[in-house]
Amino acid sequence: MYERLKGFRDFFPAEMAARRAVVDTVEDVARRYGFREIDTPRLESAEMWADKSGDDIVDELYAFEDRGGRHVTLTPELTPTVARMVVDKGQELSKPIKWVSTRPFWRYEAVQQGRFREFHQTNVDIFGTDEPTADAEVLAFAADSLTELGLTGEDFEFRVSHRDILGNLLESFEPDVDTRAAIRAVDKRAKVDYDEYLDLLAAAGMERADAESFDDLVAGDDLEAVAEAGNEDVNAAVDNLRAVLDAAEDFGVREFCDVSLATARGLDYYTGVVFECFDSTGEVSRSVFGGGRYDDLIESFGGQPTPAVGVAPGHATLHLLCQRAGVYPDEAVTTDYYVLSVGETRPEALRVARDLRERGHVVETDLNDRGFGSQLSYADSINAETVVVVGERDLEDGNVTVKDMASGDETTAPFESFPGDAERPTYDDFA
Amino acid sequence: MYERLKGFRDFFPAEMAARRAVVDTVEDVARRYGFREIDTPRLESAEMWADKSGDDIVDELYAFEDRGGRHVTLTPELTPTVARMVVDKGQELSKPIKWVSTRPFWRYEAVQQGRFREFHQTNVDIFGTDEPTADAEVLAFAADSLTELGLTGEDFEFRVSHRDILGNLLESFEPDVDTRAAIRAVDKRAKVDYDEYLDLLAAAGMERADAESFDDLVAGDDLEAVAEAGNEDVNAAVDNLRAVLDAAEDFGVREFCDVSLATARGLDYYTGVVFECFDSTGEVSRSVFGGGRYDDLIESFGGQPTPAVGVAPGHATLHLLCQRAGVYPDEAVTTDYYVLSVGETRPEALRVARDLRERGHVVETDLNDRGFGSQLSYADSINAETVVVVGERDLEDGNVTVKDMASGDETTAPFESFPGDAERPTYDDFA
Repeated sequence: MYERLKGFRDFFPAEMAARRAVVDTVEDVARRYGFREIDTPRLESAEMWADKSGDDIVDELYAFEDRGGRHVTLTPELTPTVARMVVDKGQELSKPIKWVSTRPFWRYEAVQQGRFREFHQTNVDIFGTDEPTADAEVLAFAADSLTELGLTGEDFEFRVSHRDILGNLLESFEPDVDTRAAIRAVDKRAKVDYDEYLDLLAAAGMERADAESFDDLVAGDDLEAVAEAGNEDVNAAVDNLRAVLDAAEDFGVREFCDVSLATARGLDYYTGVVFECFDSTGEVSRSVFGGGRYDDLIESFGGQPTPAVGVAPGHATLHLLCQRAGVYPDEAVTTDYYVLSVGETRPEALRVARDLRERGHVVETDLNDRGFGSQLSYADSINAETVVVVGERDLEDGNVTVKDMASGDETTAPFESFPGDAERPTYDDFA
Repeated sequence: MYERLKGFRDFFPAEMAARRAVVDTVEDVARRYGFREIDTPRLESAEMWADKSGDDIVDELYAFEDRGGRHVTLTPELTPTVARMVVDKGQELSKPIKWVSTRPFWRYEAVQQGRFREFHQTNVDIFGTDEPTADAEVLAFAADSLTELGLTGEDFEFRVSHRDILGNLLESFEPDVDTRAAIRAVDKRAKVDYDEYLDLLAAAGMERADAESFDDLVAGDDLEAVAEAGNEDVNAAVDNLRAVLDAAEDFGVREFCDVSLATARGLDYYTGVVFECFDSTGEVSRSVFGGGRYDDLIESFGGQPTPAVGVAPGHATLHLLCQRAGVYPDEAVTTDYYVLSVGETRPEALRVARDLRERGHVVETDLNDRGFGSQLSYADSINAETVVVVGERDLEDGNVTVKDMASGDETTAPFESFPGDAERPTYDDFA
């Protein structure tokens, strides 16, 4: 009768269990690096994006006027919000500020594989340091998250670039180039054909011969050649990129990083190192996620100059990558115990259930006043590991029955002392 | 420069750590009862509320037209969404269906203490059983959550009522009463003065004398007297309420439940037992949260008849209650280790940090190329428990320094074998 909106998803328990396992893994890696959880409004003033982001995002906003006449939007990404928070409270916080949060974002775009209108990301950001070590820590967090999920260097690669290489290299060729437009052209490089790409560069003010020479450099990974062709700023950026890669070596994640200058990232606010994660096999054809340095954003929001770097693994594309690599977690619920009540034994069954829950276990009991077979079948449907049968006749003898669901084996155990001292009593403890 | 919207909140790390601890506690109790996590769209068709909920909610919707011309709304509550999901897939799922999820909702209402326009709830629902045991399990989940948070029977009470008692008792007095309007009047009973309340009942079709007699019964907790005054349906409802309280006894949570027939719950879709949690001291004057049975909603959404019961602790009011009772968790971040690098020791420091992180600890390192004192001061600011100093001179002797931040005591440990077999090495292990 009512339909879910297109591009929005319901997550039922089995698929949610797998998604939760992935989110937990990524968040746990962030936690161990000392990223601190924050939470942020899902709705913000739309002008935050109108002023600061590229048109691509503004055209996809879920923006509207609220009952108070404010022009608001469902947030399409986190960065402007955390920038606002750093402006508000950044002076009170010790640096570096290291934040993590997992939550949905919204963009009204064409729905396709791995792309939804409501999508979930784990955002990780560091504010208050422009040291290459910080860029490398963000890469290390991302790489460790993927390897913790079971992915290897055969599965993924980080294509690492630098905004100041691209921008200044463009200016080395053509001082009057429209840098933003040209970088957006580079961002589209892999998505359009070569001539169309050169046309985009031409529209940004590049002579065709320069555009071709520029592209030869951008297509390769020869930082020496780039430094030679570029001005002083290009050289400084090449040095910075090399320093980040050296730091990545110290973090143990250099092996996952490839220099790929054509990786530009679509958002306007990036300033330094940028990178995108790709499926090494190419089977997942889109970028899995990306990140980079955005040193000017906080100041442009009215704050003290505050360098920043971040990354945001998106869980829909990460799902695709893990699935392709065969490491996506099982989509199934698990249950430690089902306490099966036969006859008028609810008080006794619930006493057993309560004691098992106090030990931290997942325990279900009969909520439908069902018979033995029907309860056992339900216990099977929730993948119960052990069934404890609390029956009237057993109770007369002071016993319950403990059944191992995998083998079907069962034995009796004393009711009064069950589960007693056992932290996780199973069939084996009483057989 | 940019401002957060009114009624929306930023959660910085210290306050988020406390909020996370509360959410984790509540979700862990739900998990142990076998509630399975789901996730749901934040945006739905606005008609789901226009058709099914009371006007109060519809007047507060963040509703708008999306770019595809759909009349959509930020979801103000979860129930219609889970009803839609049960209609979509309920036939494939084994019953009872037991779901939990924590997420924000939105209502454009007056901002006040414990009430925000974006607010977070943990929704727990059981579908597919009308047994009193299920109602009691929802009460038990809620009570166990509160006691796990450190609250006691001195701190909170569940005021339990039954929609069919109210509705049918009203009809026992006046067959032509507008039941919905009269129940809404009862819901407002504590918020308006007695005459205004009687006027609302009069507007719903009750004679003044009947309204007064009705209120005498509603104000008390004498289920015998209610059964005597009411028709057959009232008697059936009284029996049902008693059965739920008996089941609550078996779950060990009867002590938290008070019969309170005037507790009506504002939402129209409730059908059976309803309850609200209150601060026993009255210091938190609003209902902390509420829940109840809504057996007709799934069918009214076009699904098979599917009884349902649920509760939704709201984290803003729960925060107020925990704070009032002195059990709200500390608002502070914690850190297991800070690995302090002195001189050109980044590779060695990051090796130590990596090994500590592999053991699951929260570990930070220098991201700002700072000196000793500045790093130590940062370690203090993040409440680091242990600082491991990796210095050039120490390393020449093959050592690191292990410093306990609480006492200031420090000692050396061998670098190569650090942390070695120790799961959580501290000063005491090497002193």
